[in-house]
Amino acid sequence: MFTRIDHVGIAVNDLEKSVSWYETTFGLTVVAQEINEEQGVHEAMLLVHDGTTGGSHVQLLEPTRPDSPIGKYLAKNPPGLHHIAYGVDDVEAVMAEISGKGIRLIDSSPRHGAMGSSIAFLHPKDTGGVLTELVQAAGR
Amino acid sequence: MFTRIDHVGIAVNDLEKSVSWYETTFGLTVVAQEINEEQGVHEAMLLVHDGTTGGSHVQLLEPTRPDSPIGKYLAKNPPGLHHIAYGVDDVEAVMAEISGKGIRLIDSSPRHGAMGSSIAFLHPKDTGGVLTELVQAAGR
Repeated sequence: MFTRIDHVGIAVNDLEKSVSWYETTFGLTVVAQEINEEQGVHEAMLLVHDGTTGGSHVQLLEPTRPDSPIGKYLAKNPPGLHHIAYGVDDVEAVMAEISGKGIRLIDSSPRHGAMGSSIAFLHPKDTGGVLTELVQAAGR
Repeated sequence: MFTRIDHVGIAVNDLEKSVSWYETTFGLTVVAQEINEEQGVHEAMLLVHDGTTGGSHVQLLEPTRPDSPIGKYLAKNPPGLHHIAYGVDDVEAVMAEISGKGIRLIDSSPRHGAMGSSIAFLHPKDTGGVLTELVQAAGR
């Protein structure tokens, strides 16, 4: 079902500072950076490892407004681990399979993710408190 | 510096139930399960993807006693994402490199991790609130 850990999402207060920290301390490289106005997030993808089934990344997420999902998260929690995302080859097929097992999805159909990907989130109330994302990379 | 995301650690209240959930819902496979008395944790490694530089896993962690690190964590937080672990080829070399950049380490020397690995944790106060682990797999 899963082809890799696509990324681990980390909520931060200052994207520029956090990106610089990950570059300097761990030698990670930014492969994409974008503002998603719909989600109210300024995000950066940093590559940890590029494998045969796609890359594994750290995704840094800074809210662009306090009423966005990440803004609300940071109002209640300190900066830190926010979600885990698994790579899949066919996000709609995996959504159907998981939904068929009684797990609720936050997204009823895939939406736009980083780097042209198609993504969907599972409901954390059905995943042991772990916000979980499915990612179909662009061109797959 | 990093060869992969080795695993994402998830704190759970009931290991058996959580393992079963990950097997059934996501089709993951348990590759190791052990009790680490020193750390007061009963843990299971479930394989997400096996790549050329090693596997990426979900690690489920149930405390064996309330005064263990995971026990204390779950007394203050709901079950969920606990830490991220990066694979390295030489844990002592990477510890020295990161320490040389002014990042504090929780472990001054590597200790025993799952599946015969050598591990070390970085101090979350120096990593933006993200508990971060380095993992050198057994035989590397």
